[in-house]
Amino acid sequence: MLLPDIRIPTLLLSESVCRRNIAHMRDRARAHGLHFRPHFKTHQSRRIGSWFRDEGVTSITVSSVGMARYFADDDWEDITIAFPVNLREVEDIDSLAAQVALGVLLESVPVAQRLDAALKNPVDVWIKIDTGYGRSGIAHDDIDALRRLAETVGASRHLRPRGILTHGGDTYRAAGPAEVLQRFSLSRDRMIMAADSLRDQYPEIRISVGDTPGCTLADDFSGIDEIRPGNFVFYDVMQLQRGVCRAEDIAVALACPVVSLHERRSEVVLYGGAVHLSREHVADARGTQLFGLVAQLASGGWGAPLSGAFVTRMSQEHGIVHLPDSRTTAIIEGDLLAILPVHSCLTAECMKGYRLLDGSSADHFAGVSKLAPAPSAPAQTDRQETHTP
Amino acid sequence: MLLPDIRIPTLLLSESVCRRNIAHMRDRARAHGLHFRPHFKTHQSRRIGSWFRDEGVTSITVSSVGMARYFADDDWEDITIAFPVNLREVEDIDSLAAQVALGVLLESVPVAQRLDAALKNPVDVWIKIDTGYGRSGIAHDDIDALRRLAETVGASRHLRPRGILTHGGDTYRAAGPAEVLQRFSLSRDRMIMAADSLRDQYPEIRISVGDTPGCTLADDFSGIDEIRPGNFVFYDVMQLQRGVCRAEDIAVALACPVVSLHERRSEVVLYGGAVHLSREHVADARGTQLFGLVAQLASGGWGAPLSGAFVTRMSQEHGIVHLPDSRTTAIIEGDLLAILPVHSCLTAECMKGYRLLDGSSADHFAGVSKLAPAPSAPAQTDRQETHTP
Repeated sequence: MLLPDIRIPTLLLSESVCRRNIAHMRDRARAHGLHFRPHFKTHQSRRIGSWFRDEGVTSITVSSVGMARYFADDDWEDITIAFPVNLREVEDIDSLAAQVALGVLLESVPVAQRLDAALKNPVDVWIKIDTGYGRSGIAHDDIDALRRLAETVGASRHLRPRGILTHGGDTYRAAGPAEVLQRFSLSRDRMIMAADSLRDQYPEIRISVGDTPGCTLADDFSGIDEIRPGNFVFYDVMQLQRGVCRAEDIAVALACPVVSLHERRSEVVLYGGAVHLSREHVADARGTQLFGLVAQLASGGWGAPLSGAFVTRMSQEHGIVHLPDSRTTAIIEGDLLAILPVHSCLTAECMKGYRLLDGSSADHFAGVSKLAPAPSAPAQTDRQETHTP
Repeated sequence: MLLPDIRIPTLLLSESVCRRNIAHMRDRARAHGLHFRPHFKTHQSRRIGSWFRDEGVTSITVSSVGMARYFADDDWEDITIAFPVNLREVEDIDSLAAQVALGVLLESVPVAQRLDAALKNPVDVWIKIDTGYGRSGIAHDDIDALRRLAETVGASRHLRPRGILTHGGDTYRAAGPAEVLQRFSLSRDRMIMAADSLRDQYPEIRISVGDTPGCTLADDFSGIDEIRPGNFVFYDVMQLQRGVCRAEDIAVALACPVVSLHERRSEVVLYGGAVHLSREHVADARGTQLFGLVAQLASGGWGAPLSGAFVTRMSQEHGIVHLPDSRTTAIIEGDLLAILPVHSCLTAECMKGYRLLDGSSADHFAGVSKLAPAPSAPAQTDRQETHTP
């Protein structure tokens, strides 16, 4: 039995592929004169973070206050929380700001005022711009709202204006590279216009953008000061399908035991389902939903995706793989298959940790604590310690 | 600020609703003369498990060997693992079988033989039947395959035949109660036929079924010996939409901070996304995807779902709520909204724990450990302990 110590679904991580992805993106940032502030929400790992340090990275992006705390306590000293300020966490934000150079996102005057009133320590402020994604941020062409917020920040005691920031999430909806570039350019142009409208208020205004498709493929970053891509550290099937990466750039794969064979319908059932991979899916060329690609495992890693093999259905713990007819006969129960995830950020969050190909492990913030047990929790066990954040 | 100690997305659990759901299903089992073996994969909590004990429940179902270990170590002594045997875990299965009355699922002769060869302790065997769901199990009408497996089990040293078992997952795809009942009946009839074909081999053969829609709504369980529903402990929007439960039967809601307001498009952005709720969605009457219903929080719990309010989009940490126009003006940043989840099993798995309405907490197996850090893991922290299972 290959890799007999892998007994349950296990997220494998190729350090060499991951380090290559990191070095490649850092080189792109350097070549274009951009400040590189990678988003750590994809990997959420101190060990993987150390590989960024090895490449000279000193400033990072995270998506929650808790994640900022996790990396601040690992000696990262320059952290942007790329998520709208949550007023319920102002005390935690203030204590982080006492310890590191902390950046936050603002998009509303009342939140800016309430944050400023609650802080004792200075924070860097990025105004969040919506360049068309329609999630959060001030619309790029709502100049009045932009100027009102800039004025509030300017008049505050603790908020230090840094610039404007966007997540050009539109590029994730692009069908292919040409559309990625088109959307990236449009977002960039809108950011430059928004910045120009604030330049009299913020002479030092900077522009920060961050999306893996754009940052991987674009060659024209003129006007941009900083990039914050995250997913590139692992890539995944979604990026592969859009032509953003190659299969050999995908740095994680879920090793899943085969638990049942259904030759008549050319299917095998895996131990590995929605709680391991997440329910994220993409459509193939015919419009069929797929939840992952399939590869053979070897002791040194995994091979290229098998042609015609897909995770076609999924329940809580089960994944159903369709295989080309010739493959099913070569597989028996107890084998492992490697699943390349559709969305690596979510799979990593589900799995809460990694196994490297040398058998060692890497941490994930979700493995530390999401819900801290309250003191009154009655159900402590010999396998469970109480963590008080 | 209401509930100021809720700072991040937090899964609220109503003990009274949950206990009412438990008592109601136990009463149904009793009224129909059925053995009640609830599935604990929905809640995965020792504390919630204790509420089942309070209602006289002594036998349970789980979906993984690790989950069986979690409950065995909490003194549950009769556990069925309702997942195809994973040959990579035979040692763990054997050690569990030494400690508790352990039931496992088999559907193939080679797995039965390899399991039997590896065991030192006896296990109860349920033959997994596929009554039409098409996931795992022997097709209900594949009598040859059924009889061959029954024979293998009969000739084994350590496998004790108990009966046949199905998960009638078809009922989850039903549009409404009438279709649930129709599919439940069909599955039941097929189980009875499959059992009849084995009765000369297994005179004591038992029939076990388990799906929340069928077990909640059916009134004719003739021929069935055991039920294993799980989701009923919390219910969710999927069950509400199919007419299986009422809104007031839903026992969990995700409390999410409001972080941004977009009055022009009648939307608010929540801190609470795919990593909290899961990406499970249902379609409303017009075919629009929705990721949750929305309710107001009060200190004693949450209210009825707000008419016309839905979680319409979701990314990793963000949820976008559409509200009726009249509502947006009453909400400010820092408020909490309660989201009723589409699929409570997955939301509980994401959140890894519960906050009861009295402020105490309840455990979840996923909060204990999924990936046990290897000894070589370099990234231990002051907030992270090493758990060795």
